[in-house]
Amino acid sequence: MKFKIVLLSHTPEPEKVVATAAKLCYSNATIENIFERLDDETVKNFLNFLVEVGHQSPLEHVSFTFGIEGVSRSFTHQLVRHRIASYSQQSQRYVKMDGFDYVVPPSIEEDEELKNIFIDTMNQISQAYAILSEKLQKKHIERFKMQGISEKEALKKAEKMAIEDARYVLPNACETKIIMTMNARELLHFFSERCCNRAQWEIRAVADKILELVKEVAPNIFKFAGPKCIGLGYCPEGKFSCGEIEKVREKYLGRKREEHEDY
Amino acid sequence: MKFKIVLLSHTPEPEKVVATAAKLCYSNATIENIFERLDDETVKNFLNFLVEVGHQSPLEHVSFTFGIEGVSRSFTHQLVRHRIASYSQQSQRYVKMDGFDYVVPPSIEEDEELKNIFIDTMNQISQAYAILSEKLQKKHIERFKMQGISEKEALKKAEKMAIEDARYVLPNACETKIIMTMNARELLHFFSERCCNRAQWEIRAVADKILELVKEVAPNIFKFAGPKCIGLGYCPEGKFSCGEIEKVREKYLGRKREEHEDY
Amino acid sequence: MKFKIVLLSHTPEPEKVVATAAKLCYSNATIENIFERLDDETVKNFLNFLVEVGHQSPLEHVSFTFGIEGVSRSFTHQLVRHRIASYSQQSQRYVKMDGFDYVVPPSIEEDEELKNIFIDTMNQISQAYAILSEKLQKKHIERFKMQGISEKEALKKAEKMAIEDARYVLPNACETKIIMTMNARELLHFFSERCCNRAQWEIRAVADKILELVKEVAPNIFKFAGPKCIGLGYCPEGKFSCGEIEKVREKYLGRKREEHEDY
Amino acid sequence: MKFKIVLLSHTPEPEKVVATAAKLCYSNATIENIFERLDDETVKNFLNFLVEVGHQSPLEHVSFTFGIEGVSRSFTHQLVRHRIASYSQQSQRYVKMDGFDYVVPPSIEEDEELKNIFIDTMNQISQAYAILSEKLQKKHIERFKMQGISEKEALKKAEKMAIEDARYVLPNACETKIIMTMNARELLHFFSERCCNRAQWEIRAVADKILELVKEVAPNIFKFAGPKCIGLGYCPEGKFSCGEIEKVREKYLGRKREEHEDY
Repeated sequence: MKFKIVLLSHTPEPEKVVATAAKLCYSNATIENIFERLDDETVKNFLNFLVEVGHQSPLEHVSFTFGIEGVSRSFTHQLVRHRIASYSQQSQRYVKMDGFDYVVPPSIEEDEELKNIFIDTMNQISQAYAILSEKLQKKHIERFKMQGISEKEALKKAEKMAIEDARYVLPNACETKIIMTMNARELLHFFSERCCNRAQWEIRAVADKILELVKEVAPNIFKFAGPKCIGLGYCPEGKFSCGEIEKVREKYLGRKREEHEDY
Repeated sequence: MKFKIVLLSHTPEPEKVVATAAKLCYSNATIENIFERLDDETVKNFLNFLVEVGHQSPLEHVSFTFGIEGVSRSFTHQLVRHRIASYSQQSQRYVKMDGFDYVVPPSIEEDEELKNIFIDTMNQISQAYAILSEKLQKKHIERFKMQGISEKEALKKAEKMAIEDARYVLPNACETKIIMTMNARELLHFFSERCCNRAQWEIRAVADKILELVKEVAPNIFKFAGPKCIGLGYCPEGKFSCGEIEKVREKYLGRKREEHEDY
Repeated sequence: MKFKIVLLSHTPEPEKVVATAAKLCYSNATIENIFERLDDETVKNFLNFLVEVGHQSPLEHVSFTFGIEGVSRSFTHQLVRHRIASYSQQSQRYVKMDGFDYVVPPSIEEDEELKNIFIDTMNQISQAYAILSEKLQKKHIERFKMQGISEKEALKKAEKMAIEDARYVLPNACETKIIMTMNARELLHFFSERCCNRAQWEIRAVADKILELVKEVAPNIFKFAGPKCIGLGYCPEGKFSCGEIEKVREKYLGRKREEHEDY
Repeated sequence: MKFKIVLLSHTPEPEKVVATAAKLCYSNATIENIFERLDDETVKNFLNFLVEVGHQSPLEHVSFTFGIEGVSRSFTHQLVRHRIASYSQQSQRYVKMDGFDYVVPPSIEEDEELKNIFIDTMNQISQAYAILSEKLQKKHIERFKMQGISEKEALKKAEKMAIEDARYVLPNACETKIIMTMNARELLHFFSERCCNRAQWEIRAVADKILELVKEVAPNIFKFAGPKCIGLGYCPEGKFSCGEIEKVREKYLGRKREEHEDY
């Protein structure tokens, strides 16, 4: 897959901020004193404790902003269903898709015949989009002229109206860009849903990459992050389970379950 | 447009519930007494007062659930960006789109040539989808068989995996169904954004229909509902303004602005 | 404890609405057809399946509104920390607390000596509140008079300003009334946190009562509701655990854990 | 007033992040290119445009974390009603209030007689709290001993249980500490509600201080921040209006309204 994700920005010293917020609940010291006196070791120990007992609210104080590109509109339609987050997405109503890029599912990419069918369809759509947007624009321009609107203004308005409707032919595969901000608590929830083997491959791949990025800047917060079976100790999906909980565990925790270990 | 919206369910006696919640803030009476003693006239007066001074939080206690059908995926991608709401949508990952229905933008519908281009593209996509899902399914079934999975199970799993990837060719125009629940406060916000002449035509048409439906069951709550220029008394969109604030006012309030009236 | 909770209103036929929303995701039928054809048995089976696999989002479509009285301000300060909910609370800024009622913690109630200390303190506070609000009101009225404000208006404004400041002496124990609306998904989360033996006694008692009320109208939705150990199968609180998971299980599920049962 | 507020942390380069997110919606460039090429002048112009047309969602990508101390529990009970935010508060269930500090309302502080009544009440409460927590602790310890719990553990558990109940006598005036994180969009809403002359004095003073702090790091985002009359151009509170919109305007915008100016 060719998507690209960058960690554009995040709350500085995220683990120290979370530890300060958590410590405040049980402390009589001033906030600045708590914050300044926290050394790396204490932060680490405190976060391990927090994560273990599931005291999640302090995790909300730190946010991470990602630039996500080369993903499909299928993916973003799923992504934005996570409502405790903020999104800014490239608009198909405003940005004209000249010979648009698209995401090819791996199962199709790997098969020459299917790939050709797929690419042909993309090309047909691309042509239809080009013709529709051009012809719609012309029609709108003419109408605007008759209404006495200046040529420059007519051109701009007409283009927007044209691509707004021409885009109805564009496919789910169409590439898009989106900026997303999520706090650490919601990220843990996002991973619990989307790193699961039952999640759709594109959003799972993005979730895995995002987890990799945040682990670099906040390793203790995301130490036990992963699909929900990691935290539960069992898969709740019943007959839909992937049946590979031990493999999953090794992938996300880097180790097997020890006897008598809860999760 | 051929979409269909039904008000599937809502908090019973919505205006009485809102009035009770609002009254409680300023009252010493018991909650049940407040609730039971509220007659229609008092509810109406109290709601008018609330809406006028912009005391919005009591409006959150009542929710409305809509069944929305015959709309495009373009529309739902916009809709679900309203995060203070709940959604359940027909999944393209689970439901096979045999000869899918689609939404044709009015600007295209009204022009024979454009309409034909549009329909041809839909047909091409439909064929590609059918071929891709069939061939992918076959490939997956064969692989599953080699893994020793039972035919019945293989069939089911393979179909899901096949349509999950074939759907990448499906267009924005593809019809979908969605159930949405929103509380009255968020509905007012939804109308303020989406009844605006600058909103995209499909979501504006849906917003207008939803407003019509809720006005029937809660006329006092939604008395001043409409695009944000109604509440502001001016259009904040600057040079992008539709320039028709008086017409908009008449459409939503049913009357012109009187002199010396704030909004 | 003497608090009083009523289920003031809720989405009608809550289980049918949830089942419809859930079914839509996997179905090609129209929404109205799904809704109308669902019989009680199908609803029940579908909900059991949903709850089991943890597919929670359809639960958001149904909301429950409670009138809660005879609780302390300590309690409401904790309650309103649940942010995916709506609240309307009797305001100490607007409602004068003449000889206010208060909540006595059971550990104090049961001990004559402690009870007397507690009641004496409440009486001292009550007197201070009465004197402060009276004297502040007089001062404000005089000032308003000098500003030429009419007596009637001065009286009203002065009273509000007086009680707004006098209330700074009022205790956490002070009784209050609050109307709360929560959807079923958030209620499950609320129970998971607040039915826990580690939760504070007042909010735990309220949570238990609320659970009782919603079980009456939506038994299948709240079948496995209770503290988080019920769903997890273990207590995540580590050394802070109450150590009574089997008792808790019996209280909320009405039965012991069977061998080989995940949760 | 003696409260203390520090801006503990915030998204770095907040205005550049917001401008990038906003620009993405209308651009074909890569996210990193947009971000890197934005100079200060462009950011400023773009933000002015955004704020003017009310395009608020990009403002959510940046968050601000505040340490707030020396405020009353009255204040925090109001504060936490803002639900699109994150809070960590010093707990009265865990932190013993030895000779607690308290907030004195200015109207009481300035009057010797009222101040003495207030302080006397605080002292009476403080004594009651001390006695109740001591005696409750003893009772619990004895009970734990009889249950065979070790002295060390009994001491700890008993203290927590004792202060959890003794705190029911503590007053609204009782000082507390809280860490709050809010994004820029919600901060604008917070200011629109809480900088209003009708807001309670303590939360208004805190809101003003917070506005001062964020204006230093993001002057363009918060250029027009203030009570809602600033944005509306009129006061929606009707007969409850402070009647001083021009003064308010000068305080927050630093200038009078010009003729023909919308807001």
